Amino acid sequence: MKLHTFFRSSASYRVRIALNLKGLRADHAHVHLSKNGGEQFGPAFDALNPQHLLPVLEDDGLVLPQSLAIIEYLDETQPAVPLLPADAPGRARVRALSQAIACDLHPLNNLRVLKYLSGELGLSDEQKNAWYRHWVAVGLGALERQLTHSPDTGLFCHGDTPTMADCCLVPQLYNARRFDCDLSPYPTILAIGARCEALAEFANAQPEAQPDAH
Amino acid sequence: MKLHTFFRSSASYRVRIALNLKGLRADHAHVHLSKNGGEQFGPAFDALNPQHLLPVLEDDGLVLPQSLAIIEYLDETQPAVPLLPADAPGRARVRALSQAIACDLHPLNNLRVLKYLSGELGLSDEQKNAWYRHWVAVGLGALERQLTHSPDTGLFCHGDTPTMADCCLVPQLYNARRFDCDLSPYPTILAIGARCEALAEFANAQPEAQPDAH
Repeated sequence: MKLHTFFRSSASYRVRIALNLKGLRADHAHVHLSKNGGEQFGPAFDALNPQHLLPVLEDDGLVLPQSLAIIEYLDETQPAVPLLPADAPGRARVRALSQAIACDLHPLNNLRVLKYLSGELGLSDEQKNAWYRHWVAVGLGALERQLTHSPDTGLFCHGDTPTMADCCLVPQLYNARRFDCDLSPYPTILAIGARCEALAEFANAQPEAQPDAH
Repeated sequence: MKLHTFFRSSASYRVRIALNLKGLRADHAHVHLSKNGGEQFGPAFDALNPQHLLPVLEDDGLVLPQSLAIIEYLDETQPAVPLLPADAPGRARVRALSQAIACDLHPLNNLRVLKYLSGELGLSDEQKNAWYRHWVAVGLGALERQLTHSPDTGLFCHGDTPTMADCCLVPQLYNARRFDCDLSPYPTILAIGARCEALAEFANAQPEAQPDAH
């Protein structure tokens, strides 16, 4: 298996956590998202993924983009240490929590969007940071309520073992801290995040622990 | 089953198509996204989904947001007329195509984002429309290449029967037309879209066919 990754790509970070939790090893191919005008736009990566987004997993002839599709694929083909619950309502809840981050929060604050805000729209850094923090506050505020109000929340987002939802939550927290977002209104999220970050599977997946960070 | 929906919500539109394809009936609860300052912010809907986003499916005590999580839940609990392939690589591909729309394209052009652009950022209609068309061109341009280059593309996005990916594609095309996006660079997408739109299951799900449109 080969994972195309960049240390700071938070969608890649999700998959690195998932691989670690499942005890799987993938060779890493590093794609630097800003060097040389962005290696994701070069001919090699363009041929692999015309979306020019990370991560991409190669496995047995399959070339698969999209972090959540990759995590579900790993869970189906390597079912030991499941990252989705066995019951349909539980699976639905974990998917919905994951998508609240991966569909409704993260894409708005992605690198290409921030570039459009400061480039095409000529926004100031202050306006760009306000945009970033606005969507973090909207997204994490709703997620905090969803987690706090549900009896299905345990030590982690769903029950007492990590799932795909935790693979999404931790990189999102990492990003929020990078942009100095106020996280104090989200005690449940912070407690779950701290439990995750204490695990080697999460710690070894974090950006600073990647060889391409240095 | 009850579906909380708005005729013009394209994530609701995805689920309406999925329900029709599977031959399932859900009562509709209409949530008007602009009337009364947005009924999604009212106390009743806020208690249901703190994300204030549509759709939400209620089924047997479960309250489930997120269109893709809903479609997967329907596919798991009502497996007749599957919307995901039986094989893991096929399932991964359909999920990745769906997420290319639901994670990377649609959230950038969602109502709340357009409101932020013209409200908080004070952008002109021209700038807002350029933003909209930019992300449609980036997203559909990549999708066109993914569909054209894969032997797995058939009469529909994956093979010769509709899947979750087609449930995502058609509402996205509808939106793109509403904002006068140039779709001529995407002949494969247009051909698949036309095949879908010719089916009653898709036609009956479209915004203008909903009682809350009138």
